[in-house]
Amino acid sequence: MARKIKLGAFLPGGGQHVAAWRHPDQPTDGALSLEFHKQLALTAERGLFDAYFLADNLAIGFGGAREGGNARVAGFEPTTLFSALAPFTKNLGFIATSSTTYEEPYTTARKFASLDLISGGRAGWNVVTTTGDPTAQNFNRQTQLPHAERYRRAAEHVDVVKALWDSFEDDAFTRDVDSGKFYDPSKLHEANYRGEHFQVRGPLNVSRSPQGHPVIVQAGQSDDGRGLAAQTAEVIFTAHQHIETAQEFYRDIKARARGFGRDPNHVLVMPGVSPFVGRTLEEAQEKYERLTSLILEEDGVGLLNGLTGGTLDLRGYDLDGPLPEAPPTEGMKSRQALIRQIADENNFTIRQLYQWVASARGHFTIVGTPETIVDTLQEWFENEAADGFNILPPWLPTALDDFVDLVIPELQRRGLFRTEYEGTTLRENLGLPFPINRWTAARSVVQAAE
Amino acid sequence: MARKIKLGAFLPGGGQHVAAWRHPDQPTDGALSLEFHKQLALTAERGLFDAYFLADNLAIGFGGAREGGNARVAGFEPTTLFSALAPFTKNLGFIATSSTTYEEPYTTARKFASLDLISGGRAGWNVVTTTGDPTAQNFNRQTQLPHAERYRRAAEHVDVVKALWDSFEDDAFTRDVDSGKFYDPSKLHEANYRGEHFQVRGPLNVSRSPQGHPVIVQAGQSDDGRGLAAQTAEVIFTAHQHIETAQEFYRDIKARARGFGRDPNHVLVMPGVSPFVGRTLEEAQEKYERLTSLILEEDGVGLLNGLTGGTLDLRGYDLDGPLPEAPPTEGMKSRQALIRQIADENNFTIRQLYQWVASARGHFTIVGTPETIVDTLQEWFENEAADGFNILPPWLPTALDDFVDLVIPELQRRGLFRTEYEGTTLRENLGLPFPINRWTAARSVVQAAE
Repeated sequence: MARKIKLGAFLPGGGQHVAAWRHPDQPTDGALSLEFHKQLALTAERGLFDAYFLADNLAIGFGGAREGGNARVAGFEPTTLFSALAPFTKNLGFIATSSTTYEEPYTTARKFASLDLISGGRAGWNVVTTTGDPTAQNFNRQTQLPHAERYRRAAEHVDVVKALWDSFEDDAFTRDVDSGKFYDPSKLHEANYRGEHFQVRGPLNVSRSPQGHPVIVQAGQSDDGRGLAAQTAEVIFTAHQHIETAQEFYRDIKARARGFGRDPNHVLVMPGVSPFVGRTLEEAQEKYERLTSLILEEDGVGLLNGLTGGTLDLRGYDLDGPLPEAPPTEGMKSRQALIRQIADENNFTIRQLYQWVASARGHFTIVGTPETIVDTLQEWFENEAADGFNILPPWLPTALDDFVDLVIPELQRRGLFRTEYEGTTLRENLGLPFPINRWTAARSVVQAAE
Repeated sequence: MARKIKLGAFLPGGGQHVAAWRHPDQPTDGALSLEFHKQLALTAERGLFDAYFLADNLAIGFGGAREGGNARVAGFEPTTLFSALAPFTKNLGFIATSSTTYEEPYTTARKFASLDLISGGRAGWNVVTTTGDPTAQNFNRQTQLPHAERYRRAAEHVDVVKALWDSFEDDAFTRDVDSGKFYDPSKLHEANYRGEHFQVRGPLNVSRSPQGHPVIVQAGQSDDGRGLAAQTAEVIFTAHQHIETAQEFYRDIKARARGFGRDPNHVLVMPGVSPFVGRTLEEAQEKYERLTSLILEEDGVGLLNGLTGGTLDLRGYDLDGPLPEAPPTEGMKSRQALIRQIADENNFTIRQLYQWVASARGHFTIVGTPETIVDTLQEWFENEAADGFNILPPWLPTALDDFVDLVIPELQRRGLFRTEYEGTTLRENLGLPFPINRWTAARSVVQAAE
């Protein structure tokens, strides 16, 4: 079977573009509307997307918009929202973000196993370390942990979660009414994890979920982030403006995965793409300009500050002048470098810079017809830059509808995308293997040796 | 309007009675079936119950049954499960248990606010401190915190959560497209909490939820537990075998609540009741004996050990002899005393004891007709023993159906129970006041003084 493009959809109810909520198509109360999120999920499933993806924050502070102008200042907690949406869909995956720094592995393992059960095997966990002092201050700290320590903790956290997901073997539940044996105790296992950051005994009080392990997703761009992703992630979300840097990233991740003894085909690299789709180039350009015209200056400036971890306070600078120098900081290192690169390459003023990043917050913006957009996606897909894409419709719901109604059919015409779901679980649709329970595997080895 | 009985329903998918899963009516895979939980929720709503209630554990270890015989060894995480059920119901409340010892207040506040939004104002939080070393060992500790420290931490945790729920005032969201003002920054507030156990800045990144605050529920029986409940809880779940002890508890809680300056009518005391309902007394008795006959000896002994916090290991004792003495322990003090009281009062052998507690795990078991059962409930309700009851159907779904089809109509005939829901939120149905946002209240005071 020919390799196909995988597609995730970033669908924050408040909209992706900083001015999305001011667009007449976008409901202003979308961020807190269950009905609106349900409509988005149904559209994504109609478009045969692999998964609905939600980012997450554990603080207000860096919202990417001026005081009072941020439509994403408040929203649902992702695993509860996705649990509410899952029963209305059949094939769409749900990838929720959860922090390795501010949650305990037992809690993480449990909520994702529960979502995987609720959805019949369609859960994914986007592993993040969560940057910023404002978040630390919501969790009994003054400042965030150093970058390297956050990543060591993240690696342990993922290890513990995976061990807990293997607590019950797949066939542990006998449910034999006559003998009174509900489960086989020899197929229930403690993790007994003792690490630098976590000591967790287990077992988890949730059964192995339909996928064995919910799909592990990550988005690290730094050296630490790439290392963790190559070691543990099955889907990697990444931000690139050019095929060359995407290729560098793609090849680096695949090589690192190989270095960890992993099959590089089981580590899917999916750059973010923010599409403005028109039937003609003019129509697409008009859509881009219309949304851009809705950005207030304060929101544009606030967005750049938010995206760089609060270290780029441009209030008072000439918005039609260049971006000033700023020191590198602990958090968001890679995002800061990316923003600066975009400014330098395009010789952007501050205003032009925020207008450009406003649509996708650092991801790749494409303005075009279905044909030109698919030309680009195909080029990236066929030349070691991408295994698929995370689509970030700049406003909702019509920019998502545009993609589903215009771009998906063109992808299908060229044989690049599915015409129906391959399976019922997220893993099956992504072409990822079912992780064999470690205890079952160990028993097989012993039995084979006997 | 005459005072009415409030009703909660304890509906663990694995069944309440230790042998429930061996009953032919009960699906053996109920604990992990979303469809089964959905069926239970719809039945509870048909019966006009105030709320669906779920207990919770953060460990396997004390399951109340022998190795392999515990049908509740694995289940869903409650807030994700309730998020999945809420959209299929319109009026039923959802009270999920969450631990003040092993979760962070920011996380607690967020998941319950999210569930309250998803359900349109039907969320409740059962505040527990979570006992047992096996749980501590899942969260980086060897042993649990001492009893008193757990309760001090719990009081702080609830304080922080309530402060976070007030982050946004109710009218903070202006969503004014023309001005670009999505919210009014003067109506967004930090908690800036600095306590012994928690330092939390805030604000919470979820709006005030439909109920303002999800309903606070507790079940503490010890002196510390009663103090916390009287100070913070709006619904109190409690276990009594006799009207006299229930009255003592009821009057004590109401007096303590008054001592904290609270209206005692806003602190609802709801004892647990496990009903075996028959059209005749003989039929009810047969139902009781049938379920009792399904208890395996090992499971009965394991149940007693589990209910007393793992301190009552009766393996090897003569099951037809008396209960031996055991030392009091840190955790589950009140539950241990209750179990011993049941044995002493009834002069029970070990076997008789576990048979009796098997149905309701320490709660009040009533075997009777709709008339005799309602006689008892009415007596408790009208004589300062209860404002309502938490119904624990011993097996599912038919014991719940029995209650809804036979007991509810009798309650309604006597004018003791609603014939339709009073409101759409849990708070409205329970007759609890809407908590005014502290910042809005403070502003009113200032304005009144000017």
